[in-house]
Amino acid sequence: MMMQHRWTALVTLLALLAYFWMIVQVGRARAKSGIMAPAMTGDPLLERAVRVHYNTLEFLPIFLVSLWLFAVYWNELVAAGMGIVWIIGRLLYAAAYMADPAKRGPGFMIQSLACAVLLFGALGRIIYSLATGGV
Amino acid sequence: MMMQHRWTALVTLLALLAYFWMIVQVGRARAKSGIMAPAMTGDPLLERAVRVHYNTLEFLPIFLVSLWLFAVYWNELVAAGMGIVWIIGRLLYAAAYMADPAKRGPGFMIQSLACAVLLFGALGRIIYSLATGGV
Amino acid sequence: MMMQHRWTALVTLLALLAYFWMIVQVGRARAKSGIMAPAMTGDPLLERAVRVHYNTLEFLPIFLVSLWLFAVYWNELVAAGMGIVWIIGRLLYAAAYMADPAKRGPGFMIQSLACAVLLFGALGRIIYSLATGGV
Repeated sequence: MMMQHRWTALVTLLALLAYFWMIVQVGRARAKSGIMAPAMTGDPLLERAVRVHYNTLEFLPIFLVSLWLFAVYWNELVAAGMGIVWIIGRLLYAAAYMADPAKRGPGFMIQSLACAVLLFGALGRIIYSLATGGV
Repeated sequence: MMMQHRWTALVTLLALLAYFWMIVQVGRARAKSGIMAPAMTGDPLLERAVRVHYNTLEFLPIFLVSLWLFAVYWNELVAAGMGIVWIIGRLLYAAAYMADPAKRGPGFMIQSLACAVLLFGALGRIIYSLATGGV
Repeated sequence: MMMQHRWTALVTLLALLAYFWMIVQVGRARAKSGIMAPAMTGDPLLERAVRVHYNTLEFLPIFLVSLWLFAVYWNELVAAGMGIVWIIGRLLYAAAYMADPAKRGPGFMIQSLACAVLLFGALGRIIYSLATGGV
């Protein structure tokens, strides 16, 4: 049984829980609004909950893949730390967007920064490693 | 060449095929409706096919990541079995939603249960392992 | 530190950069159109940018997972090569769709072909391996 990268795995599962909580918020906003599936529009709070959820879904592939590549090819604990930053950014984004879409900036910047560190960190490390030898 | 986790890999690819089939159903519903891209609305069957596809896409990160973390950190065959349950739940959900959106509940519950077992199983196993020693 | 599969990792990160560029195009189209979040419709160029982004998001799980399973269970360099083909197909698709949605076909076919090679290649290799022995 693999026992490596458990901190990365833990942060990954916490991120998925935060993401799942956003799915639940969409369901609750839908129930409150009285709008039936498949409609997704017609109530401001439902539309905001949907956008919070979908913006997070849009960034999940960037975040999760960069997180693991950074952890595997460079540094496990830096990756896990950046993962915590990403989750905090995402929760701030969600809370601010539900209150007022115009205030979604700071949380979004925090999650973007965490993604950028993970993606460009992993990219730089892998290019450096390929350029300096090894197979 | 890695020969571990082939059952998990097989179930993963079957899940992607089920997911791809939903993408094809959207294309077919679009062709039948005569609605041209980029429009996604205006025909009930197209809207249902889109919602089936997107709801599945929304859960794919939770499912795929939890499936692999459960398989790698705990038990390969339980993970693969839960993966089969997830696929069945998703196909039931798709068939029911296309017939009548109000009947989408049971398939959705089955896929949610499979996701919950995989996510909380992996989470519990990793927390237990970190709490009881090892690096 | 794992030093395997660096070409696959490199192609993965390039694909995520191409995907991130599509997210940026949506933001730019939104700014140009003057349409405020959470609205996603009302301007043809914004709607096209959103569709380019979302169609790519829809295929990312199929592409990324099949890419890695092909690389791990079969052949690293073929996987990385198909990954490059996928990125080229996606960029052609984006450019054509923004110019005229009716011209999105060729880029879409290229990316579909790359996905099919990766998915069915990995599936065939894993089924063959399970059928001919080993655990």
